[in-house]
Amino acid sequence: MNNPSLDEFQSIIEYSFKNKALLTLALTHSSYGNEHKKEKFENNERVEFLGDAALDLIVSRYIYDMFPSMPEGELTKLRAGVVCEQSLAKAAHKIRIGEFLLLGKGEENTGGRSRDSILADAVEAVIGAIYIDGGFAEAERFVTQLMASSVEELKTSFRTMDCKTHLQEVIQKTSKSPISYSIIDEYGPDHNKVFVAEVRHNNKVIGVGNGRSKKEAEQSAASDALNKLGV
Amino acid sequence: MNNPSLDEFQSIIEYSFKNKALLTLALTHSSYGNEHKKEKFENNERVEFLGDAALDLIVSRYIYDMFPSMPEGELTKLRAGVVCEQSLAKAAHKIRIGEFLLLGKGEENTGGRSRDSILADAVEAVIGAIYIDGGFAEAERFVTQLMASSVEELKTSFRTMDCKTHLQEVIQKTSKSPISYSIIDEYGPDHNKVFVAEVRHNNKVIGVGNGRSKKEAEQSAASDALNKLGV
Repeated sequence: MNNPSLDEFQSIIEYSFKNKALLTLALTHSSYGNEHKKEKFENNERVEFLGDAALDLIVSRYIYDMFPSMPEGELTKLRAGVVCEQSLAKAAHKIRIGEFLLLGKGEENTGGRSRDSILADAVEAVIGAIYIDGGFAEAERFVTQLMASSVEELKTSFRTMDCKTHLQEVIQKTSKSPISYSIIDEYGPDHNKVFVAEVRHNNKVIGVGNGRSKKEAEQSAASDALNKLGV
Repeated sequence: MNNPSLDEFQSIIEYSFKNKALLTLALTHSSYGNEHKKEKFENNERVEFLGDAALDLIVSRYIYDMFPSMPEGELTKLRAGVVCEQSLAKAAHKIRIGEFLLLGKGEENTGGRSRDSILADAVEAVIGAIYIDGGFAEAERFVTQLMASSVEELKTSFRTMDCKTHLQEVIQKTSKSPISYSIIDEYGPDHNKVFVAEVRHNNKVIGVGNGRSKKEAEQSAASDALNKLGV
């Protein structure tokens, strides 16, 4: 009893389910279950619950390893950016999950098949289903692969988010001497002030930047240094 | 270079670290790191970040398997109860983690060694450290064991939380016929009304209960039925 649609999806995600019913469950939106008078839990909400937690842990480990000196607060922010609905919806399009969803007529007619929230939930449900079917390592492989092409975006978003941490990372790899920031100038009226910051390493200015706050100016100086260092 | 204290803790948690430094890290509170002028990330906050996510997934899977027909919303509520600071602090006392913590003098003098938040965080940090050191399966073993004796409490809290779901679970194991609730009486003035509910199975009343709302009365009837069924 092969289902060509399920076969195609499994080939896209490069994982073949031992228990095909689990994949079907992961692709069943609650609207479909409701219309077909299935038991209320015969939709992807429970596996999504599990997949959401699995995704969180896999991404946590990934960024924990990737940024060995990033403080906990930054890790938390970064993870939130990676597991947000928008990122998941992007991943959903990559694996064309919308085409394989079982949706109720109501959702179908109102564009549910391309709705970010439904797509993101379905991705989490598939993660949860792979975790149950193949174990944690398989789920990890799937999530990492799904994210692989976004690693560059991840790095970029990380830099945008906190250039100072990133610069610290880069410098620490080759040097034990610290970097230091100072505000070297400020101008403009009080309600529209601009601050200028520089960042020094070994007593040498390695970056300069400005911003509407001292913090913003320092981030900008760090970004300037990263550019000059070619990272 | 054996550390007797670490040896004792490892024997309590029944896990021996390949990388002992990771265990020390997990037991290092930020107050200790700060006082000893360690790098700001040389405390347990990063491994706690990881352990928190690992704990979430392990508990999610545990209750997912244990309550096969519990809807996602209830699973979420139940998990929140299990991974809350209070439950973790209780687990912390079980493994006497407070005795092994590296704390700053300030925290030490103000009772930090027995503060729930510090203890709960340390438990998460140890979970994270085991996950890094021994892999996900080891973390799962540790968490499950830590929870094993709380399984009964878990069941009780689950029953308190949603007796109707639990009764449904129990009945479904042996019968295909549904259970049904009805409000059989209400009394008292409007602002202080009491509802009486009964629950029936195979046309037989299996439980009766009352409450300040229809929902509460039904939950109470379900609880009564569970008691009569001896579960």
